Amino acid sequence: MKNKFDIALLIFCLALGINSILAQNHPKLILTQEGVRNIKSSLGKAPLFDKVLVETIVEVDAEISRGIAVPIPKDMAGGYTHERHKRNWFMMQKAGVLYQVTEEDRYAVYVRDMLLEYAEMYPNLPLHPTNRSSATGKIFWQCLNDANWLVYTSQAYDCIYTFLTKEERKQLEEDLFRPYADFLSTGNPKFFNRIHNHSTWGNAAVGMIGLVMNDEELVSRALYGLNIESNSKNERDNDGGLIRPDGMKKAGFLAQLDGSFSPDGYFTEGPYYLRYAIFPFLQFAKALANNKPELDILAYRDKILQKAVYSLLYQTDANGLFYPINDAQKGMSWNAREVVTAVDLAYLHFGKDPMLLSIAEAQGKVVLDEAGFAVAKGIAEGLTQPMQQVSIAYTDGPNGGQGGIGILRTSTTPENELCVVMKYSAQGMGHGHFDKLSYSLYDETGEIMQDYGAARWVNIDQKGGGRYLKENNTWAKQSIAHNTVVINETSHYNGDIKIGEKYHPDLFYFHGEGEVQVVSAKSQHAYPDTELHRTLVLVNDEQFSHPILIDVFKASSDTPKRFDLPVWFQGHLLQTNFEYESKLNALECLGDGHGYQHIWKEAAGNAADGNAHINWFSNQKFYSMISAVKPGDDLIFARLGANDPNFNLRHDPAFIIRKKDQKEATFVSIIEPHGAYDPVTELSEQPFTSLEEVSVLHDDKGYTVIQFSNKAGESWTLCLANNNASKEANHRLEIEEVLYSWEGPFILKKNKG
Amino acid sequence: MKNKFDIALLIFCLALGINSILAQNHPKLILTQEGVRNIKSSLGKAPLFDKVLVETIVEVDAEISRGIAVPIPKDMAGGYTHERHKRNWFMMQKAGVLYQVTEEDRYAVYVRDMLLEYAEMYPNLPLHPTNRSSATGKIFWQCLNDANWLVYTSQAYDCIYTFLTKEERKQLEEDLFRPYADFLSTGNPKFFNRIHNHSTWGNAAVGMIGLVMNDEELVSRALYGLNIESNSKNERDNDGGLIRPDGMKKAGFLAQLDGSFSPDGYFTEGPYYLRYAIFPFLQFAKALANNKPELDILAYRDKILQKAVYSLLYQTDANGLFYPINDAQKGMSWNAREVVTAVDLAYLHFGKDPMLLSIAEAQGKVVLDEAGFAVAKGIAEGLTQPMQQVSIAYTDGPNGGQGGIGILRTSTTPENELCVVMKYSAQGMGHGHFDKLSYSLYDETGEIMQDYGAARWVNIDQKGGGRYLKENNTWAKQSIAHNTVVINETSHYNGDIKIGEKYHPDLFYFHGEGEVQVVSAKSQHAYPDTELHRTLVLVNDEQFSHPILIDVFKASSDTPKRFDLPVWFQGHLLQTNFEYESKLNALECLGDGHGYQHIWKEAAGNAADGNAHINWFSNQKFYSMISAVKPGDDLIFARLGANDPNFNLRHDPAFIIRKKDQKEATFVSIIEPHGAYDPVTELSEQPFTSLEEVSVLHDDKGYTVIQFSNKAGESWTLCLANNNASKEANHRLEIEEVLYSWEGPFILKKNKG
Repeated sequence: MKNKFDIALLIFCLALGINSILAQNHPKLILTQEGVRNIKSSLGKAPLFDKVLVETIVEVDAEISRGIAVPIPKDMAGGYTHERHKRNWFMMQKAGVLYQVTEEDRYAVYVRDMLLEYAEMYPNLPLHPTNRSSATGKIFWQCLNDANWLVYTSQAYDCIYTFLTKEERKQLEEDLFRPYADFLSTGNPKFFNRIHNHSTWGNAAVGMIGLVMNDEELVSRALYGLNIESNSKNERDNDGGLIRPDGMKKAGFLAQLDGSFSPDGYFTEGPYYLRYAIFPFLQFAKALANNKPELDILAYRDKILQKAVYSLLYQTDANGLFYPINDAQKGMSWNAREVVTAVDLAYLHFGKDPMLLSIAEAQGKVVLDEAGFAVAKGIAEGLTQPMQQVSIAYTDGPNGGQGGIGILRTSTTPENELCVVMKYSAQGMGHGHFDKLSYSLYDETGEIMQDYGAARWVNIDQKGGGRYLKENNTWAKQSIAHNTVVINETSHYNGDIKIGEKYHPDLFYFHGEGEVQVVSAKSQHAYPDTELHRTLVLVNDEQFSHPILIDVFKASSDTPKRFDLPVWFQGHLLQTNFEYESKLNALECLGDGHGYQHIWKEAAGNAADGNAHINWFSNQKFYSMISAVKPGDDLIFARLGANDPNFNLRHDPAFIIRKKDQKEATFVSIIEPHGAYDPVTELSEQPFTSLEEVSVLHDDKGYTVIQFSNKAGESWTLCLANNNASKEANHRLEIEEVLYSWEGPFILKKNKG
Repeated sequence: MKNKFDIALLIFCLALGINSILAQNHPKLILTQEGVRNIKSSLGKAPLFDKVLVETIVEVDAEISRGIAVPIPKDMAGGYTHERHKRNWFMMQKAGVLYQVTEEDRYAVYVRDMLLEYAEMYPNLPLHPTNRSSATGKIFWQCLNDANWLVYTSQAYDCIYTFLTKEERKQLEEDLFRPYADFLSTGNPKFFNRIHNHSTWGNAAVGMIGLVMNDEELVSRALYGLNIESNSKNERDNDGGLIRPDGMKKAGFLAQLDGSFSPDGYFTEGPYYLRYAIFPFLQFAKALANNKPELDILAYRDKILQKAVYSLLYQTDANGLFYPINDAQKGMSWNAREVVTAVDLAYLHFGKDPMLLSIAEAQGKVVLDEAGFAVAKGIAEGLTQPMQQVSIAYTDGPNGGQGGIGILRTSTTPENELCVVMKYSAQGMGHGHFDKLSYSLYDETGEIMQDYGAARWVNIDQKGGGRYLKENNTWAKQSIAHNTVVINETSHYNGDIKIGEKYHPDLFYFHGEGEVQVVSAKSQHAYPDTELHRTLVLVNDEQFSHPILIDVFKASSDTPKRFDLPVWFQGHLLQTNFEYESKLNALECLGDGHGYQHIWKEAAGNAADGNAHINWFSNQKFYSMISAVKPGDDLIFARLGANDPNFNLRHDPAFIIRKKDQKEATFVSIIEPHGAYDPVTELSEQPFTSLEEVSVLHDDKGYTVIQFSNKAGESWTLCLANNNASKEANHRLEIEEVLYSWEGPFILKKNKG
């Protein structure tokens, strides 16, 4: 009732409207005069927009009534001054929008008065006293947050520009905005010129305030970067990442667009960071589209921003949670504020894709601009279509030549959802993990085989001030923390980012359609003189009671090695088909470095009959993995948590297959989700795997052939060509007097009874 | 659409109806002729009933189309023959109801044909071949399940009674029902005559089939038990429980009603078992109400069944999950089938309490009888009121003289929900735990301080066939598995059920109203020559930012002892205010028996300043506990999972305060839930406790006075009289020249600034 009343009142007031100031050319940055007119003329017709508008009015009014506070900067993230200035930027941006939509002067007064207080303070501000960043800010502990402030505040300034007197504008621009923009750019060239999401914020901030002020020098600086020769080619930031990647000769926003994404929109740090990074890209791009249409920025680089938005939306599980690859905190999803902006802008500017409306409905909000308005209107008109994520392979690297990630998903009903993500990407800069050819697996309940994500509790002050924890390096980045092969207890690239940035695995082939989907990739450099080759096969076929994942991991080295393949299965172990001995009274670490020092060894055994089955329970579902092993392979149950003096790590379980003292190791496993258990009815359905056995029929450099069977006595053969990805190539192979022939790099065939 | 169509069609067909058979006097057991007439005349007016009716038609029709299977009994629970016979009983009962409501002969035919198959098989059936129960059944591995079958099947027989020929009835009664009932009673006197929920099923089964057959001998046997002198007074069943408790001279259903509940409806085994046990009570009671109104069974023992139903509903957390006290599997809730029956029957017969309708709405189903119909109608008429659980103290023991449990809850908004359950009950028979004066704590998200529940995975075959695991005795029943004091690493009553059954703690006082609620109880016998006295104070007062729980636990012994008080906090430890040393490379057990052998010691420290604060994170909320400790007290972080060769245990964390080598130990802690964290916005609100410090001002046999303060500099004093629970008593105490005077056993006062 309240919503309706407020909106009705607002429409009424606007109808009376004296709207003289609209004759001038602001707002123009994100909101435009025409956009504002459209919104005002259609209030009451797009309920989701109205809802957000009313919520924003309530929020900003409450904030106005509490008064303005612009404290001298002092605190780290989480502390008072940090949080206060952060809140100020949000409130100013919102108040600016409200001033435009409602024409109520008090919103403009609020922004003006706050900006004037900043203009009072800024000229005398030293660097932030914390001095804990490689690019210390003034208002905040790092330039990144100073840039955040300006991206929002430039919008607020734009919205009240015409409300201000000329003298006020002069004071704000000379005492606050221009020196602020100079500080972020010429004052911090290393920050401003890097190809990195932090720098994108810097570019956007400087460019957006430049557009509002008609300051072409700032806009140019934002678009093309600083011409600073002092950025030497190999200079690194304090997270270990390069300031300028090899071959990148440019800086600034266009260079970010060129260098931050692969040609198909993959962001090398992964979706958690893309979600953060996309925001300044889209904000500044929108502002450029409004003010420099000659750049045609939304079509730049073959619509790279559109591709980036979709790559963000496709890198999610069934519930919209981002795959937590690299330094990602789990739980982040497409409900994030930045994705609201991305979905709305993509809807309006990239073809009104009706599937985007279903995400907007899930988000339950829209941005207060013409994009958000278009989305709310689309929803009100009943145009929504369900979002359908797809199987897709993304390339990595600015030119797409640095590996990538492959996503296979069954994309059917919720009861039949299975999605595997294989990572054969480049290092991913400072936030990258040493997890070549790793995979993570998801169903409709979430993680089945997890990626640990980051050892960090973002904005939770109790855990190292919310920053990356020591264990992020000693654990989360290490190879053993991921579902991939680790050789001789040493992480890929020896856990050295400098080596990692030189190399990347390569996609061997990707087949993302039909009932048998495959992604196959190889790494030549994760270890010296060693090839790793993993092939993941997602089968969603009526022949099987549930979708299954077949994992074939071949590792070949010149000299004998020890090979560990962990699976970080999520849930409680129920049963195995092999004997194991548990550590009863004492636990020891599994190793002493490269992450092994963080793992407790809980139990170990061997499978005499060549098949190791494990069965576990999670989220009221059952899961099984059956693996072809040799009697001499160690089967280890492990748990995270050793050498964790401050309880920074989760105590998650793992199962490790260890092959010792051999040059070649081929790991073959099949994972099947099955059945259900309800603690209220206490009924369990299909608690056991439908699979019986898996074995390796043939394995050499050229071919790997595996066979597996189910309990009904049916069996299947999977033939893989290891060196020829051609779809047209014909393969013939005789194994124990049986001829196998097929076309293309793989075939899965049911054997005749 | 489908639902509406089917119901409409059904109403139409019934309107045509030739209903000659209703002149006879069946059904009469649960359904009655009048009840069926009412239902049929009002179809289409109670949507929830219609929905369940249509679902049942779909389910039973599908089952009928698959045909009848009555296999020779062979398997344990989870195996084919067990599950098949179990499904048969449900299907027959449902088909019987459908025959009555729809008048479709095929339902009666289905029941008849299946019953005749049973009648063929039964006369020649030996005992079930598993022979693994102290009361082995014939159809199932235990008589309990045979009784379950008959409780349902007697209803099916009743529903098709008039459809059968006289000869068919004769065959069924002579070959199946009478011998079946004899087997459960005279054939298994130990099973039939025990005061135990299994026996209630036996009594109900025999009585219900007796009512249908008009077999007064069976009905009398069911009501009054067998007169078997061979049940000696101290005979025990194989779970260690007594066949007949001391002083119980009767057997049979009325004796169960007398002996199973305390006078206010508490069931000594706890709510998980009450949920199971209540079903045959209510079913047989309903049948008796329909057929032997002279017993006035629903009013028996001052309405004990009504009290039992409410005690079941009140022993739930905010989400309707039962407190997992004693051998309970977690996750069981008021959505369970048995509670649907209980809620519906209670609604119809115990005063149409509109709060019950909100539970029925949450359940989303009703039973297909006049009670379920009344509920569906009440909902359709908009009578629903929200369920409000209450603070309440339940007595234990048939006469209410064996301790009990006390529930304190804030009962306000979801954001402000806090509920503590203190257990000072009797042993609870074979399923009881050694957890005197333990508590568990809940908020709107679920468990804050957990009760472990049972070490059992019910009906999950992989875990010991779904039966109780070895660890249920070695871990789940032990005192250290609970939030209560353990002395010298020995469980209460030395972990011996025979000792436990002799004693119980006693309520000292209970105050369940207002802003300061208190439950206080004492145990004299958990340890020899030792008194344990715990007082829990739940404070929900505007003075505090959140509801808090104050825990004062006094233990006094004749000789020096070691006292451990664990809290099994649910979540991830964030921070402490004291130094601790973690075990980095190796873990050892905390002890070697009484559950300690299952605990890994992860870290230990001491608090030099007399206050130990811990802060943890769970379910997107923050929690803190501050404790008054001495510098010599050990502060131990521990984790479950040692000596667990089959991964049967959860790896849950605990914090243990250990006081060594002293005769008296007083543990004082305050627990505060506070703040929130959202992984999508990455914002944390109030991550730190609002409390500053807690200290013991005075502590002797007569009085304990504690003082605590918050970070705003305010402070409070809690005065407890330890030996006088009188509300009228006046107390005066001088501490450091300050006089404290108050009336009644406790007072919480804010100190003057």
